[in-house]
Amino acid sequence: MKRTFLIRTSGPACYEFTAEVRTWLETAPSDGVLTLLVRHTSCSLLIQENADPDVQRDLLAWLDRLAPPSDHPSMGWITHRHEGPDDMPAHLKAAILPVSLQIPVEHGRMQLGQWQGLYLVEHRSAPHSRQVAAVFQSC
Amino acid sequence: MKRTFLIRTSGPACYEFTAEVRTWLETAPSDGVLTLLVRHTSCSLLIQENADPDVQRDLLAWLDRLAPPSDHPSMGWITHRHEGPDDMPAHLKAAILPVSLQIPVEHGRMQLGQWQGLYLVEHRSAPHSRQVAAVFQSC
Amino acid sequence: MKRTFLIRTSGPACYEFTAEVRTWLETAPSDGVLTLLVRHTSCSLLIQENADPDVQRDLLAWLDRLAPPSDHPSMGWITHRHEGPDDMPAHLKAAILPVSLQIPVEHGRMQLGQWQGLYLVEHRSAPHSRQVAAVFQSC
Repeated sequence: MKRTFLIRTSGPACYEFTAEVRTWLETAPSDGVLTLLVRHTSCSLLIQENADPDVQRDLLAWLDRLAPPSDHPSMGWITHRHEGPDDMPAHLKAAILPVSLQIPVEHGRMQLGQWQGLYLVEHRSAPHSRQVAAVFQSC
Repeated sequence: MKRTFLIRTSGPACYEFTAEVRTWLETAPSDGVLTLLVRHTSCSLLIQENADPDVQRDLLAWLDRLAPPSDHPSMGWITHRHEGPDDMPAHLKAAILPVSLQIPVEHGRMQLGQWQGLYLVEHRSAPHSRQVAAVFQSC
Repeated sequence: MKRTFLIRTSGPACYEFTAEVRTWLETAPSDGVLTLLVRHTSCSLLIQENADPDVQRDLLAWLDRLAPPSDHPSMGWITHRHEGPDDMPAHLKAAILPVSLQIPVEHGRMQLGQWQGLYLVEHRSAPHSRQVAAVFQSC
């Protein structure tokens, strides 16, 4: 079975959608593999700690240090500038964070660890509506 | 169904092979999941923007700043040197960019977003012939 | 078929488990796709060079430079500190290295390249017991 998850974002943050996926998989409780693909090049998928929200804030701050906005003094070498100072760093972050994820499923339950949540990581500043294509293959 | 894609490279760049994969999937237009694995440790797979080629150039320049050649003054701590100054940074880049990708497929069409292309990212300077193992599972 | 691999770690290193997976897949020699998911947020999966152990040492040293311990002078901005100085950098490394991997399989043999090995990369200092969920889908 398949569907598309729509996630509305309002600036850089980790948007959890574990519960939406869990509810969907429970409609057909079987064994298999879930595949997720984010259909954009300036946001990412991520499995990360779901306990202390500081972890997500620190992650975003670190990514900003690895790939600062194009108008930062250290980024004078960037050539792709016409979509705003947050666009090229968004593509850079999207290159090193996952674009697709696969999760084993048992009896309709994702086999995530206790501290793992499923996130859409938005890298752009403006509000966006993001699509995540999902396929569940039973086996 | 399965096959291997061969991609000849001539130095660090993003080599698009979206069209080759599209043509192959159209030979059996069904629903399922495509799995790709690059069979090397000094190049990567990537889904990235397919519009402005500056994005790819900036991405490569950024990766070079994250992981400069071993003979760069900042990389004196590198120990794996006998395959040339572009080898160890190639392994480092290969660790943080994707080695495998999964793409949902509908009626033989990859469910990529409008701006997403499929690339082999070469990290080595010398010409190489790269293999990407592909499996399509219908479901 | 499915199972969980248990990998005991004793500090940051690359722990190879290619042979364990190979042996398991040989019990049912068919074509398909192997999915692996590590069920933790402070270690990673990785496909990397299996020849020169210096490559793995250099990779770990590089990751430490990208994401130093929280008590390093350059990391004063970190807020998530109560689990020790090696915890937040472990989450950062886990964000940019793979959490899931997919490997095409032919007649029970992973289609890895000649120089590719399968690793659990431990980012924490204390000993841990790590779980990797595995599913093999024949097709």
